Amino acid sequence: MNEPVATVAGAESRESLTVERAAIDGALDEFCARFLGGMPPAVANAIRYSLLGEGKRLRPVLVLAAFEAAGGRGDATRLAAAVEVVHAYSLVHDDLPCMDDDDMRRGRPTVHKEFGVAAATAAGLAMVPLAVRCALYGAESLGLDDAHSRRIVSELMRASGGGGMIGGQLLDLEGEGRALTLAELERIHNAKTGALICAAVRLGGIAAGASEERIDALGVYGRAIGLAFQITDDVLDVTATTDVLGKTAGRDAVLQKSTYPALLGIEGARARARALVEEGCSALNAEGLLTSRLEHLARYVVARRN
Amino acid sequence: MNEPVATVAGAESRESLTVERAAIDGALDEFCARFLGGMPPAVANAIRYSLLGEGKRLRPVLVLAAFEAAGGRGDATRLAAAVEVVHAYSLVHDDLPCMDDDDMRRGRPTVHKEFGVAAATAAGLAMVPLAVRCALYGAESLGLDDAHSRRIVSELMRASGGGGMIGGQLLDLEGEGRALTLAELERIHNAKTGALICAAVRLGGIAAGASEERIDALGVYGRAIGLAFQITDDVLDVTATTDVLGKTAGRDAVLQKSTYPALLGIEGARARARALVEEGCSALNAEGLLTSRLEHLARYVVARRN
Repeated sequence: MNEPVATVAGAESRESLTVERAAIDGALDEFCARFLGGMPPAVANAIRYSLLGEGKRLRPVLVLAAFEAAGGRGDATRLAAAVEVVHAYSLVHDDLPCMDDDDMRRGRPTVHKEFGVAAATAAGLAMVPLAVRCALYGAESLGLDDAHSRRIVSELMRASGGGGMIGGQLLDLEGEGRALTLAELERIHNAKTGALICAAVRLGGIAAGASEERIDALGVYGRAIGLAFQITDDVLDVTATTDVLGKTAGRDAVLQKSTYPALLGIEGARARARALVEEGCSALNAEGLLTSRLEHLARYVVARRN
Repeated sequence: MNEPVATVAGAESRESLTVERAAIDGALDEFCARFLGGMPPAVANAIRYSLLGEGKRLRPVLVLAAFEAAGGRGDATRLAAAVEVVHAYSLVHDDLPCMDDDDMRRGRPTVHKEFGVAAATAAGLAMVPLAVRCALYGAESLGLDDAHSRRIVSELMRASGGGGMIGGQLLDLEGEGRALTLAELERIHNAKTGALICAAVRLGGIAAGASEERIDALGVYGRAIGLAFQITDDVLDVTATTDVLGKTAGRDAVLQKSTYPALLGIEGARARARALVEEGCSALNAEGLLTSRLEHLARYVVARRN
């Protein structure tokens, strides 16, 4: 299962990924130009740094792939990039001294290392309202009607909130130093990482005007690969080097976090991640939504090296 | 200028305020029942504690008064209460040890004193997405079309974000221990307190389907009384007791904050607040929007004792 991304996704997909990532980076750049004016410079600079650093852009790429699979027409790049704003916010706060206390992220100093804790905290806080404005702007530029925009914002906020990402961050923090059961760990991972990845995939379907059945199938896929993503993160934390990861390796052990490899062993964790990928792809297949891109992305989630 | 609220607003207004506050509290209660499920108990409990404590509910009351002045039809209580969710969030984070480090708020222990710093932080973070969902729900229950819902969410998020409340909190924090000019102080106050109060008043007009001219007049009033509110806060911090305030008096001096009384003297600050009230009321009057309620509320903002 250690195939490099290129082999998994194929040269063509790799190239389209590169083009797509550049477009997403362009949208993030546009958001900065459009929405950061009027903010204190410390906040604006920290947000810009956080958004414009290098990233996999997995969530926006998933929005676009789901949008395409569901037959969406038009350019959903801005809408997709709005999901990255929420994700970037979670990274800023995750790295804070009061959370995981990390110095490196995506191969650069973390936001609070570069701009100080107060500015990083405020920047993160400001990124939720920013994400809402970006999502509304993205929906508008895609020509979506207001009912769809509204639903998109509502789903994005549900995934970002106390029942999703933010709640998961707290559970994760509370779980440090305790031995969690597999069910507890899964609940944390589903909330902390799974909810936003799942929302990204669903959003693509909603923006494409998909039926509820198809949106639900996209949700099953999203939830499965969201969990597979986090399991893979846990595995990489013990198997990869800091250099390859672009963030500090071995943090889970330092923070005494319960992880999938600790509970299932490295091979057991990998097998669980692979099973989830199959489960997610089957759900899509049943609704005729399994494009090669969505399949490649699911496999990339578990085969990635950083 | 130390008239008690009852004299200023009159017995009738006082009674209608009491009825309205009860309705707003009811809506906040409903939000908790509707939206806190699925959150970790620590987050849900901290949010509930923060929302259901006693409060002036000034921002929701302003939404309702502006809605009424602009000829709105229907029950805007839920929409109004959504603005309180943003305000309550700002109080939770303002009180944190890394911010103003306060133990008391609204006559009770602050959220982090009751639930711990991690839960309070997560609860505050979760309250922005929550506010968006409450605003969408409030707009829906008022029967607003999606274009209006969308604009409401967009304006609320602009006021809550880096160019508004959150940016103002950072500027406020950065300003501690430094002597600020009046212009700098006004910029902080406008962002930290003024933006959300201004948005509350504008939202009432938008929900009522007011013209842009009238929404703008409501905005001028909102901005003026927002600043007057914060000036009055500064004055009360030096003139009132902790018991009457329901929060620790004299914090500004402890935190070495620049304040209006420090820059203009207590009487000078009060005079500035009164002038702002007149300015705001004039703007409404020019558009035929100056109801007795909006006038009473403006006077209450500077005459209040806590």
